[in-house]
Amino acid sequence: MIDSPVQHTGILTIGTPGKSLTECTREISEWVGGTGITEGLLTLFIRHTSASLLIQENAAPEVQDDLIAYFDQLAPEGSHYAHDSEGPDDMPAHLKSALTQTHLAIPVIDGRLALGAWQGIYLFEHRRRPHQREIALHLAGE
Amino acid sequence: MIDSPVQHTGILTIGTPGKSLTECTREISEWVGGTGITEGLLTLFIRHTSASLLIQENAAPEVQDDLIAYFDQLAPEGSHYAHDSEGPDDMPAHLKSALTQTHLAIPVIDGRLALGAWQGIYLFEHRRRPHQREIALHLAGE
Amino acid sequence: MIDSPVQHTGILTIGTPGKSLTECTREISEWVGGTGITEGLLTLFIRHTSASLLIQENAAPEVQDDLIAYFDQLAPEGSHYAHDSEGPDDMPAHLKSALTQTHLAIPVIDGRLALGAWQGIYLFEHRRRPHQREIALHLAGE
Repeated sequence: MIDSPVQHTGILTIGTPGKSLTECTREISEWVGGTGITEGLLTLFIRHTSASLLIQENAAPEVQDDLIAYFDQLAPEGSHYAHDSEGPDDMPAHLKSALTQTHLAIPVIDGRLALGAWQGIYLFEHRRRPHQREIALHLAGE
Repeated sequence: MIDSPVQHTGILTIGTPGKSLTECTREISEWVGGTGITEGLLTLFIRHTSASLLIQENAAPEVQDDLIAYFDQLAPEGSHYAHDSEGPDDMPAHLKSALTQTHLAIPVIDGRLALGAWQGIYLFEHRRRPHQREIALHLAGE
Repeated sequence: MIDSPVQHTGILTIGTPGKSLTECTREISEWVGGTGITEGLLTLFIRHTSASLLIQENAAPEVQDDLIAYFDQLAPEGSHYAHDSEGPDDMPAHLKSALTQTHLAIPVIDGRLALGAWQGIYLFEHRRRPHQREIALHLAGE
């Protein structure tokens, strides 16, 4: 039991090269480390609806290729969407965003994020072109 | 860094007209505003398994039509489900709920929800008939 | 409004019999009860990428059978994945994990989890063989 938690907030901006999984575990761990909090809860919230967040395996790079190919097949580009004014990759991007996560929460225990041995934090860019993406951060703890 | 966060809880009841995306950004923002908290973390939890929560674009209404049509096609009604005692739209509703979100968390920064410019908070009703849906609210901050 | 929340963290280990939905509502409720916190926010985070978390109906067992069959059909085993070095059920497990939840948050209100009448907390095991799975727990409140 820990008395009187404190909290920190921030915005992290990540550049993406277009459709991809960009790992940002290190940037986020460094931000957490900088707060001095060793026990608490980290929350990440992506401020977009055509990119999302994902915890995935960070050991085998083929996993990331398979994830991107899978979601392309599950929510394909095509002429059957009512919303097409922002390009053929926009509505599939919203669908992929709905199927994955706009936010993540990860406990901080014993001074580090409670990620498993093979887990990494990814920004999942669904648009074809490069984008600057903002992630709002919140950390409460002690 | 902010000392000694406080917390608030509540229940928000939203009526839905049957299968639809009902935006509730305003109701939720007003509840947050009423607490006086300007820095913290809001959590929403829907107390049902045949309706869910979603952050999506609130600019183009066609996006919402496409989302509803997409999930209808991804989890269609049919005679192939073992669970059919509550009607043909019940098991597809559970599947859509599993594919989207039962809870959302959104940081509150500088006195407002850290939503992006085009993001809205939606209750995604998956049943055909109108329902009253309960969302449990939790806000911790200062 | 409640002053000066405190927090608790822990790790819960759950054994699974291979591909299944294992309800762990009771274990988690007991852990919450043991902290003495009656108003707050519980967060669960599974430390794996081939198993996930799900809130689902716990009344009709057929719902669980349909969920397992549905995700098997949505992310089938096959020879079309680049990542196949850990067995044919590994990449489908990562996809099912991406489509469901690595973490859940549930408010605690009036001394109990704010779950709806028919909601249970499930560990969704996606691998064929039995596994020991770790869930990191965080509870802040009063």
